[in-house]
Amino acid sequence: MNDRLQTLRNKMAGMNLQGMIISNPVNIRYLTKIEAEGLLLITRKENVFITDGRYIEYVSNVITPFDDIIVDDQKNVSQYDYENFFLFCENVGFEEKHLTYSKYKEYIRKFKINSFIEAGEILSNLRMIKDNEEIASIKRACEITDDCFDMLKSYIKPGLTEKQIARKIKKFYNENSEGEAFDTIVASGENSSKPHSIPSDRIVQEKDIILIDMGCKIDGYSSDMTRTIFIGEPTIEQKKIYDLVLKNQEKVLDEVMEGANIKTITKGLESDFELNNQVLIHALGHGVGLEIHEGPVLSSKNDMMLKENMVITDEPGIYIPGNFGIRIEDTILVTKKGNITLTKSDKKCIIL
Amino acid sequence: MNDRLQTLRNKMAGMNLQGMIISNPVNIRYLTKIEAEGLLLITRKENVFITDGRYIEYVSNVITPFDDIIVDDQKNVSQYDYENFFLFCENVGFEEKHLTYSKYKEYIRKFKINSFIEAGEILSNLRMIKDNEEIASIKRACEITDDCFDMLKSYIKPGLTEKQIARKIKKFYNENSEGEAFDTIVASGENSSKPHSIPSDRIVQEKDIILIDMGCKIDGYSSDMTRTIFIGEPTIEQKKIYDLVLKNQEKVLDEVMEGANIKTITKGLESDFELNNQVLIHALGHGVGLEIHEGPVLSSKNDMMLKENMVITDEPGIYIPGNFGIRIEDTILVTKKGNITLTKSDKKCIIL
Repeated sequence: MNDRLQTLRNKMAGMNLQGMIISNPVNIRYLTKIEAEGLLLITRKENVFITDGRYIEYVSNVITPFDDIIVDDQKNVSQYDYENFFLFCENVGFEEKHLTYSKYKEYIRKFKINSFIEAGEILSNLRMIKDNEEIASIKRACEITDDCFDMLKSYIKPGLTEKQIARKIKKFYNENSEGEAFDTIVASGENSSKPHSIPSDRIVQEKDIILIDMGCKIDGYSSDMTRTIFIGEPTIEQKKIYDLVLKNQEKVLDEVMEGANIKTITKGLESDFELNNQVLIHALGHGVGLEIHEGPVLSSKNDMMLKENMVITDEPGIYIPGNFGIRIEDTILVTKKGNITLTKSDKKCIIL
Repeated sequence: MNDRLQTLRNKMAGMNLQGMIISNPVNIRYLTKIEAEGLLLITRKENVFITDGRYIEYVSNVITPFDDIIVDDQKNVSQYDYENFFLFCENVGFEEKHLTYSKYKEYIRKFKINSFIEAGEILSNLRMIKDNEEIASIKRACEITDDCFDMLKSYIKPGLTEKQIARKIKKFYNENSEGEAFDTIVASGENSSKPHSIPSDRIVQEKDIILIDMGCKIDGYSSDMTRTIFIGEPTIEQKKIYDLVLKNQEKVLDEVMEGANIKTITKGLESDFELNNQVLIHALGHGVGLEIHEGPVLSSKNDMMLKENMVITDEPGIYIPGNFGIRIEDTILVTKKGNITLTKSDKKCIIL
């Protein structure tokens, strides 16, 4: 059995689960490398992937004997089979944050489950800690993001629209990676005050501020980086806010390491913002992996220790409504004694 | 209040729902044009969109007074407010196919809901019937898909990989639309026998068959078209299967109109396939709109009448495992007396 399935089974045993139904395609991909619609059943003795005619051939090519996964075409699975998968299981786990209410009801009926237990946390906890293969993919995605930002520094000039710049980024990512990890944000002038602005037809002008939030995918793994740059000299207020964001973003980099407390780090930053009459209106960061947002959330409500080989973002921002916004974000790898910044683009106030 | 919200309220009244929580972002976009994270509450008297600091400014710009939607920042919504939204509501509806089990439990607690009712069908039924604005967007997406296919006919030649062809399509869509509606399928040679093949590094050769399934987005609305083409003369078997698929795909076009029964149409096609020792291993088609797959499903299990202004696909396929596959698909608009094929690319056996 592959390592990830084996670790899952160990964690299940710890929760007294004899079976589990895994329906989240990202978790299925994580455990099996299969990218196809279907249901992964962890039964007492077997790992079964139930899919349909469209995917049978593909799935059979993806998995290896070492994975130890049986592939079934759903048209050959009878009601009798469904009722037997978890026959002697006291407790069967499911992903409560993924399974819909209607599927929850359907599965209890179809699989005749006695006790259907919320167990999604097992998988999100496993996925938080990256192995070497995952880290290599994220590193590569971050390098490509740095290359893309390098390209942008000579590309961006007054006269271009936000949409044109966003398309240029998308094109770069399509040519050099598996494409964008999320919808790129290019927010210029007053649009930068919206943390999740959508690229518009606004034309970049002299004296503009431009906030760019971008990332790409390699082997399904994401990078995530934000830089805020200036066309011409920033105003005194802009420079002040930029320095405040950067100082705090770098302070977090000084603090992140195995064992550091997320709540403490976030509260420290929030206090400094408050001292300067500012407020952090979104999370400080999030885990990055097969999903652009995954565990852990970096917020002052999360009283959790960071662990080695977590990959997270550090992305404080300050937004002055209707005026401008500044966010600076890196993707970083938590290590025993500190962290490694995987996105390495210049963070000094860049003036084009 | 905008028309879509008003129609929703009428349908809710018919189900004795005094309130509804809408969390599916596609349904929120359909009802409000808002594309942001948040929750839409249909209360006795108001329509409330609860979002967070990141989106407040954007949302306020998207909605008009005519929409009649109140926007709340979640940080200003107290537990008291949550408990009051549905205070005198006997039944509150939710989208059972979208809401996760954990959110289902959370909302009952947070909103103090007495009776939380599965009501997602209201919205999927509304969305099945397209209005003029929606039809115009889908038509445009189909035209761009036809243009893309025209471009491909002169682009595709032996020596290119499936990935190169898929990238060319993606690039065309990125330049001429909001991008791909789904991951384009380019499946050559024996890969075409997998209905959902992923573009590979396989090099297109003389005498290859190439199955291309592609679509793009305009204003969020999708097109969906499949063509199967040949490099050089097809074999006698390939030609026979192609003609069988095409004959049946066109027979469906003859039959689709308001009032026609989906089950009857699908069974007719399945019978003809069977007569020829073939089998339809996936659905005959699906609705197309803000989602690439939405209602109605065209399958022999769906005993439902087609209605005017549904937009659906007609996409029979035959797959000979390890050998080749043929699928021909159009996006079509159901009318009172028949239908209009929105994707107009040539379906005669194309030999490059």
